[in-house]
Amino acid sequence: MSQLFLRTLRDDPADAEVPSHKLLVRAGYVRRVAPGIYSWLPLGLKVLAKVEQIVREEMDAIGSQEVRFPALLPREPYEATNRWVEYGPNLFRLKDRRGTDMLLGPTHEEMFALLVKDLYSSYKDLPLSLYQIQTKYRDEARPRAGILRGREFVMKDSYSFDVDDAGLEASYRAHREAYVRIFDRLGLDYVIVHADSGAMGGSASEEFLAVAEVGEDTFVRSPGGYAANVEAVTTVVPDPLPLDDAPAAHAEQTPDTPTIETLVAHLQEHFPREDRPWHAGDTLKNVLVVLRHPDGSREPLAIGVPGDREVDPKRLETQVSPAEVEPFTEDDFAAHPLLVKGYIGPAALGAESESGIRYLVDPRVVEGSRWVTGANVSGSHVLDLVAGRDFTPDGTIEAAEVRAGDPAPDGSGPLELARGIEMGHIFQLGRKYAQALGLQVLDENGKLVTVTMGSYGVGISRAVAAVVESSHDELGIVWPRELAPYDVHLVVAGKQPEQFEAADRLVADLEAAGVTVLHDDRPKVSPGVKFKDAELLGMPTIVVVGKGLADGVVEVKDRATGSRRDVPVAGLVDELRAVCR
Amino acid sequence: MSQLFLRTLRDDPADAEVPSHKLLVRAGYVRRVAPGIYSWLPLGLKVLAKVEQIVREEMDAIGSQEVRFPALLPREPYEATNRWVEYGPNLFRLKDRRGTDMLLGPTHEEMFALLVKDLYSSYKDLPLSLYQIQTKYRDEARPRAGILRGREFVMKDSYSFDVDDAGLEASYRAHREAYVRIFDRLGLDYVIVHADSGAMGGSASEEFLAVAEVGEDTFVRSPGGYAANVEAVTTVVPDPLPLDDAPAAHAEQTPDTPTIETLVAHLQEHFPREDRPWHAGDTLKNVLVVLRHPDGSREPLAIGVPGDREVDPKRLETQVSPAEVEPFTEDDFAAHPLLVKGYIGPAALGAESESGIRYLVDPRVVEGSRWVTGANVSGSHVLDLVAGRDFTPDGTIEAAEVRAGDPAPDGSGPLELARGIEMGHIFQLGRKYAQALGLQVLDENGKLVTVTMGSYGVGISRAVAAVVESSHDELGIVWPRELAPYDVHLVVAGKQPEQFEAADRLVADLEAAGVTVLHDDRPKVSPGVKFKDAELLGMPTIVVVGKGLADGVVEVKDRATGSRRDVPVAGLVDELRAVCR
Repeated sequence: MSQLFLRTLRDDPADAEVPSHKLLVRAGYVRRVAPGIYSWLPLGLKVLAKVEQIVREEMDAIGSQEVRFPALLPREPYEATNRWVEYGPNLFRLKDRRGTDMLLGPTHEEMFALLVKDLYSSYKDLPLSLYQIQTKYRDEARPRAGILRGREFVMKDSYSFDVDDAGLEASYRAHREAYVRIFDRLGLDYVIVHADSGAMGGSASEEFLAVAEVGEDTFVRSPGGYAANVEAVTTVVPDPLPLDDAPAAHAEQTPDTPTIETLVAHLQEHFPREDRPWHAGDTLKNVLVVLRHPDGSREPLAIGVPGDREVDPKRLETQVSPAEVEPFTEDDFAAHPLLVKGYIGPAALGAESESGIRYLVDPRVVEGSRWVTGANVSGSHVLDLVAGRDFTPDGTIEAAEVRAGDPAPDGSGPLELARGIEMGHIFQLGRKYAQALGLQVLDENGKLVTVTMGSYGVGISRAVAAVVESSHDELGIVWPRELAPYDVHLVVAGKQPEQFEAADRLVADLEAAGVTVLHDDRPKVSPGVKFKDAELLGMPTIVVVGKGLADGVVEVKDRATGSRRDVPVAGLVDELRAVCR
Repeated sequence: MSQLFLRTLRDDPADAEVPSHKLLVRAGYVRRVAPGIYSWLPLGLKVLAKVEQIVREEMDAIGSQEVRFPALLPREPYEATNRWVEYGPNLFRLKDRRGTDMLLGPTHEEMFALLVKDLYSSYKDLPLSLYQIQTKYRDEARPRAGILRGREFVMKDSYSFDVDDAGLEASYRAHREAYVRIFDRLGLDYVIVHADSGAMGGSASEEFLAVAEVGEDTFVRSPGGYAANVEAVTTVVPDPLPLDDAPAAHAEQTPDTPTIETLVAHLQEHFPREDRPWHAGDTLKNVLVVLRHPDGSREPLAIGVPGDREVDPKRLETQVSPAEVEPFTEDDFAAHPLLVKGYIGPAALGAESESGIRYLVDPRVVEGSRWVTGANVSGSHVLDLVAGRDFTPDGTIEAAEVRAGDPAPDGSGPLELARGIEMGHIFQLGRKYAQALGLQVLDENGKLVTVTMGSYGVGISRAVAAVVESSHDELGIVWPRELAPYDVHLVVAGKQPEQFEAADRLVADLEAAGVTVLHDDRPKVSPGVKFKDAELLGMPTIVVVGKGLADGVVEVKDRATGSRRDVPVAGLVDELRAVCR
């Protein structure tokens, strides 16, 4: 440590909010260069290399072959699949000196498909699985949490190529099993959830989420084993009701009820129900947004959800992708004078209405359901407005928030919500990209068939942060053995020459036995500071050469449990070799 | 090979001119994605990883510590050192979604200096050496020769930080020795030459060139051991002559002598010398170019060289960098009517002249030297024009070509010229970058001193091509053992099941003994095609399981020498283990 390029920091970096970001910067593993862009310092790079190696071994084990594509790519292939446009501002675009459009690859489906098209031509060449471990780029709107969500990051991406659906299914399963082994070896607490495939297209898709409070992804689980990314949860739709059970719709004065809460109170006071009190779920709230399409055009959209639920921005984004969601502004209200803020109702909405604004509703708004909703007049609501009788929306949308206790779509019980970090994603991509790029092979009968693809990713640099999220305490990082930059952190806690000499001998013996050692040999640093650094840096075993040396013992501390005991110097190497291997 | 993602090609790629480019593409090591941008296929990636590992080991051995910077970098640090502008069109620039200027790193002096400034503050922290193995970007005007000169490429770059010049000298020496070991291990025939440090600034600078006909760098060597990049060669300047030994300058009619050749013939016929025939070196040729400065401005420049030499574009570029050299156009001539094409002379040139065009001459144009040169009148030259008497240039410039037989500047004999591929470059950068970026530390007396830096590079991806340039034959690649993707290429040259079974057993035994094998197990491919592929792919040892198997022998062939002999199956593993390790 007297030579290591390292400065541990006492204070958290000002821009850090999550533990892994704070600790990885304080412990000198990474260092910020620009928003969402980090350098790897010596200790961090060692951990990154270990994650890479685990992923490489497990990919090799399923017969996937490693290649490496450039990060700087031509526009044309991404044009062919429309992703040049669909990626919107998330894509880093640039021009070379000749003015040719290029991009920094966010993912490489197009390039792999073209490579296979270039070299292979027969069903006999398949199945094929290729992977790369490579630096990727996405111009995130909100880079955050250090290397957890960066703009330049390391990913393993792989692609499978099969001649038929059964082949794709088998390739997908092999990847799924490899991912289970990878995340087991990384020591992460993770769940595998059904996922929405977002902009990628395709059908079957699952995510591997590391369970973590700071995670950006919300997922649900049921007692019966259902698990899904919240974006992928489908609503359990109630049965339709008879259309004529309700009285005719009637507008009522509801002054000063701009919110659902004030409306429910007003209803309770002035229009009490006989069967039960009013609640928020009896109202239909209409939310206005604007979709920004990839071609730059803006489209207003109205979303109707039961008043007891908010629109979930991420679920909405997933549904409307590749369009992006923007606020409905004062200017937009000015352009639509029929819309009365706080009292917007179905009568003013819909593609066929005077406003022309597309109107999508929550799937719970089934035919025959009865609602209290805006009357499009300030201070007035309509009661007993029946879907399918009094209004017909343009369709449904899965944009309402999912709540703990909601039923699982497969009937496996009530959902609980938790947060996770997306660590891996596996897709049955199907033929979309192969079709767009003309990737075909001759089948057994000599007929050209389009290849079916899978696409699979692991966040390599993100994994370093995710492991820290799941394995740290108030003192610092606690590395799992397989990822620690060194097996042992050896501290000389004294000033006597014989202690330093003994430490040097121990380090040499341990290294000779294959145990890697970070040796804190700094002569003028106090034991207290050294201990603090050892806890912060997080090697799994800490050895202290101190006063006990006079009695022939050193202290061995387990970083994770905090347990410590004296071990005779003579037996230390054997002991640690056993612990570390 | 029945599973390996590989297609060998019979024909050279249309755009390939040099052997390494042809062979690496034909043998399926790399594949073009865009001009100067390549993908690494499975075999190529293995070689690349081996080069990386050699470099990593030798850098670690001199105590350099590995880190990794992003490739996507902010503009500001490069602005501070003026390289944002000086790099001109060679820099890939882009804007992120917020409109912030960014770049793809061509080299990382600024970033390393800032990192060290960030973490270190005392002379006690130095010396320090850091390196990275990382993907770099340069928007080359003429990407060529496959991975030999790409726009995205892998480099090892390292930087040393010292408190004083003696420290820098020691860091430089350590790097030089590490580089010698690296290029020895790569098996390259290389020379270490004095180099011009170009746009990098700084003083002492040497290049490691792999000797190769296809190399872009010309270097010189003398019998006495002088070696330099041709851009770094300095002219041996003759002594000045007395100013009044020559008759007064006199203009003469020299019709139809637009070239040096016609001029010399005309002089010989009409103005014969008494002492010897005229030759081209007696004339002074004035060449016009335009400098394009980084700020975009254009400056005409006149260069006077003895008529027996051309201006060397690369030497000129080096001298005027960061400006770029452009042709002097017809429009430029139109703007300077005093300049008479083919008859331009010193009287029309110089910052103080009417044209205002800066005039730099070859160092051989010493005071008192006598020249025949243009009279600025069509069909007329001036004779006996004496430098320092009749004209005074604005300065000298090392832009004339260097020729075989020219004297070495250190007096070590006549130069010979050869070509090489720049594989490594070591610089004593000095304090330029540290100064621009404020990298200072406290010295022993508590005084702030500016750190002095070294900068050192190895072309990792280029090395793969350079090795192929130096090690191939008409059949294909011949890998040195330390770089071959596999130790052994095992070919089954028959169709009998027992041959395939024996091969499977041999492969298993060899792999168990630590010998890696590329097994050509393709059942329906003819022995001829398999042999051709084996020669093309270039593993150092080829084992053929064929007819001899019935007698208990296989054939072992050395790819480099072509020698082949039968080896008993029972002894094969021991034999090959000895050969390969």
